[in-house]
Amino acid sequence: MKPVAIVGVGQTKFGENWHQSLKQMAFESSMAALTDAKLDKKSIEALFVGNMASGRFTGQEHLGPLVAESLGINVPAANCEAACASGALAFNQGWLAIQSGKYDVVLVTGVEKMSDVKVEEASLSLMAAGEQEWEGSAGLTFAGAYALMARAHMLKFGTTREQLAMVAVNNHKNGVKNPYAQFTFPITLEAALNAPLVADPLRLYDCSPITDGSAALILASEKAAKRFETHVWVKAVEQASDTLALHNRASIVELAAAESAAKKAYTASGITAEDVDVSEVHDCFTINEILCIEALGFSERGKGGKFVEQGKIAVDGENPINITGGLKAIGHPVGATGVRQLTDLTKILRGDMKEFQGAELGLALNVGGSGATAIVSILGIEK
Amino acid sequence: MKPVAIVGVGQTKFGENWHQSLKQMAFESSMAALTDAKLDKKSIEALFVGNMASGRFTGQEHLGPLVAESLGINVPAANCEAACASGALAFNQGWLAIQSGKYDVVLVTGVEKMSDVKVEEASLSLMAAGEQEWEGSAGLTFAGAYALMARAHMLKFGTTREQLAMVAVNNHKNGVKNPYAQFTFPITLEAALNAPLVADPLRLYDCSPITDGSAALILASEKAAKRFETHVWVKAVEQASDTLALHNRASIVELAAAESAAKKAYTASGITAEDVDVSEVHDCFTINEILCIEALGFSERGKGGKFVEQGKIAVDGENPINITGGLKAIGHPVGATGVRQLTDLTKILRGDMKEFQGAELGLALNVGGSGATAIVSILGIEK
Repeated sequence: MKPVAIVGVGQTKFGENWHQSLKQMAFESSMAALTDAKLDKKSIEALFVGNMASGRFTGQEHLGPLVAESLGINVPAANCEAACASGALAFNQGWLAIQSGKYDVVLVTGVEKMSDVKVEEASLSLMAAGEQEWEGSAGLTFAGAYALMARAHMLKFGTTREQLAMVAVNNHKNGVKNPYAQFTFPITLEAALNAPLVADPLRLYDCSPITDGSAALILASEKAAKRFETHVWVKAVEQASDTLALHNRASIVELAAAESAAKKAYTASGITAEDVDVSEVHDCFTINEILCIEALGFSERGKGGKFVEQGKIAVDGENPINITGGLKAIGHPVGATGVRQLTDLTKILRGDMKEFQGAELGLALNVGGSGATAIVSILGIEK
Repeated sequence: MKPVAIVGVGQTKFGENWHQSLKQMAFESSMAALTDAKLDKKSIEALFVGNMASGRFTGQEHLGPLVAESLGINVPAANCEAACASGALAFNQGWLAIQSGKYDVVLVTGVEKMSDVKVEEASLSLMAAGEQEWEGSAGLTFAGAYALMARAHMLKFGTTREQLAMVAVNNHKNGVKNPYAQFTFPITLEAALNAPLVADPLRLYDCSPITDGSAALILASEKAAKRFETHVWVKAVEQASDTLALHNRASIVELAAAESAAKKAYTASGITAEDVDVSEVHDCFTINEILCIEALGFSERGKGGKFVEQGKIAVDGENPINITGGLKAIGHPVGATGVRQLTDLTKILRGDMKEFQGAELGLALNVGGSGATAIVSILGIEK
C-alpha cells in the first residue's frame, strides 16, 4: 500500500460535556485538527465520521453531513460504525479512500455523546455492540460479557483480581498528566480491589466510564503530505472480525480477531511485536488490556496478567501501554476512542510528550464489542 | 478510476417480514448474491453493510461482524450509515476499497428491519435522518420535511397535486410485476389524490412504506471479474453532501447535493443525462422523484412535475424511471434501498427483465435524509 501521513490531530476534553452538543464536539475536534495541520477546511476532500450509537444516545443519525455542515463544507461524508471500534473503522475507510487515489486529503472525526441518557439506557445501548438476539435478550450486559471473559481467563490461566486492578492503577496513574482526560486522579490497588461490584469479577475501576468527547485527524496522500509541516506515517491498518455472539466462539479467553489483525499488520509493515515502542490498546475493561497484550504478541497466551504485574506496561517499562491514560482514565466516548488512540500516538511519535521521547514505532488496537471487530494500526516516524 | 464489476446480486422479498430477523434477511440476500455469482463465500475478502438505524429499530448495532457471522466468514466488516443512502454509501465504500487495490472481491449488503417497532417510533427514527437539534426537536417529522419541500416547489414552480400523484400511480403500476415488491397492486389517480393526509400536501400514496428487507451485491476488480460469468460495470460513483438542517439551505426546492453528485458522475463516466437509458431514483416521497428528475438534468429546474405528467418516466417513455416499482411500491427498508436500486439496475442491464431489453447505461440516485447525502452511481454493460 502507498504511504499515507497523519498531518494534523485534535480533540475535545473528554468527560461529561454538558455544555456541548454532539455537533459542537465534532466541530471543535475537527477544527483543532485543521489548526494543528495549518490547513483550511476547504482543502478537505472527504469526511469519515466514527460514531457508534448517536441514534440512541442523542436521537441523531446521519452524522456525516451533520459534521460537514458544522464545518461549512459539502464534501462526501460517511458515518462508519463498528461499535467501540467505530473510530478506527473511520480511520481505515479514510485510509482506503486515499489508497484508492480518489482523494488526497481527508478528515477523520470520531465522536460520541453518551451522558445525555440515563445510565441504564447507556448500558443497554452499549450491549447493542454485542449479540442481541440470544445474548442481550437473555439479559447479558456489556460489562457482563467481559466479566464472563475475565472469569474464564482467571480459571484457565490463573489471572488474578490483583492483576486486573493493576491495569486500572497503571492507567489512572498515566492519566494524571493528560489535560484531556476525564479522570486525572491516581487510584490505589486497594481502592480498585474494594470498589463496588459491577459484574463479578469486574468492579468499578475495572470499567471505562460513560464519556462525551470527540477526536479528529487529517490524513494526506504522500504527494499532498509534502505541504504539511508534521508527518507521522501510517505503516499498516488491518482489520478482522470474530462472531458477535460469545457463544459462537471457539474460545472466550482470547481475542481471535485482534490476533489476526495484528499478524496482518506486522506482516504489512514488516515489523514484529518486539519493534513496537509504544502502544494504545483497548482497555474498555481491565481484562481487555490483558487480552490485547496477548493478542498483540507482547506476551504469551495466558501470561498477560503476569506481564502487567511485572510492570512491563509502565511508561518506563519494556512495553509502555496507554501512557496517556487509556480508555480507563481518559474516558471512552465509543465512536471517538479509536481516533483518540491515533491522535495520542501521533503526538507521542512527534515528540509532543516531554516525558516520553524517542519512540519511532507505535501501535493502536481498537476493539469493537467484546472482540467482534479488531483494527490494528501501526504508525511510524518514517515512511 | 479502475474498472470494477458487479458480478452477482440478490435480495429478499421486501415487506413486513415477521418471519425473519435482521440477520436472517442479510444472510438470505448475501447468499442469493453469492449464488447468482456462483461464488463460494470463502472468496469474499471484505464486507460492507449498509444500515441506517438498527440500533433503534432492533436494538442491534455492530452489523458488520453480525452479517459476517451469519455467513461464517471473519473478514473485515464495516457498517456504513448515511440515513436512507446507507446502501449506496456501503456500495461506495466497497468500490473505494477495491480501487485501493487491497481487495479484489467484496460483498455489499444493505439491510433494515423496520416493522418490529410501533409506527410512531419508526417515524421518530426516520426523523433521525434529518436535523434533530433545531428541527426534529421542534416537532418536524420526516414526512413533514418533504411536505415543506413539496409545498415550496408547488408555490415556486406550479407543480400540482396531480403531478405528485402521477409518480405514485406510475411506480405502483411498475411494481405489479415485481415479485420482491411490498405492494403489487396498481392504484388510480383518484385513489392517490383522495388518500388520507400524512403531511399536507403529501397523502398516503405519496409516501414510501415502512419495510423490512435486504439486498446484496458482489463487486470484483477488473482482474477478478474474469472469473465470473456476468458483468455489469461501475462507470462512476459520486457522492456529495448538503446541510442536514433545511433551515440552513439556500433553497429547499432543489437537491443541491444530488445535482453536484450527478455532475461529477457524468464527468467521471464521460456521459450526459441524455445517454442514460434507465434510472432508479429515490422516491421516498413522490416530490422527491420530481426533485431527483431535475437534479439529474432529465428536465429543467421546476419542470419535473410536467415531465412526469407527459409520461416520460413510463417504462416505454423517454426516460424510464423506477421501472421495477421504486421505493413507493417495492418498499423502503432504508439501509437496503441503495443496494436494491443497484441490484435492480444490474438485472435490467443484464437483460433479466423480459419486457425491457437493450438498455446499456443505467443510473441510480440514492438520497439520504431530506437531501443531505446524495450518491449517484452509473452502471454500464461496457467497461
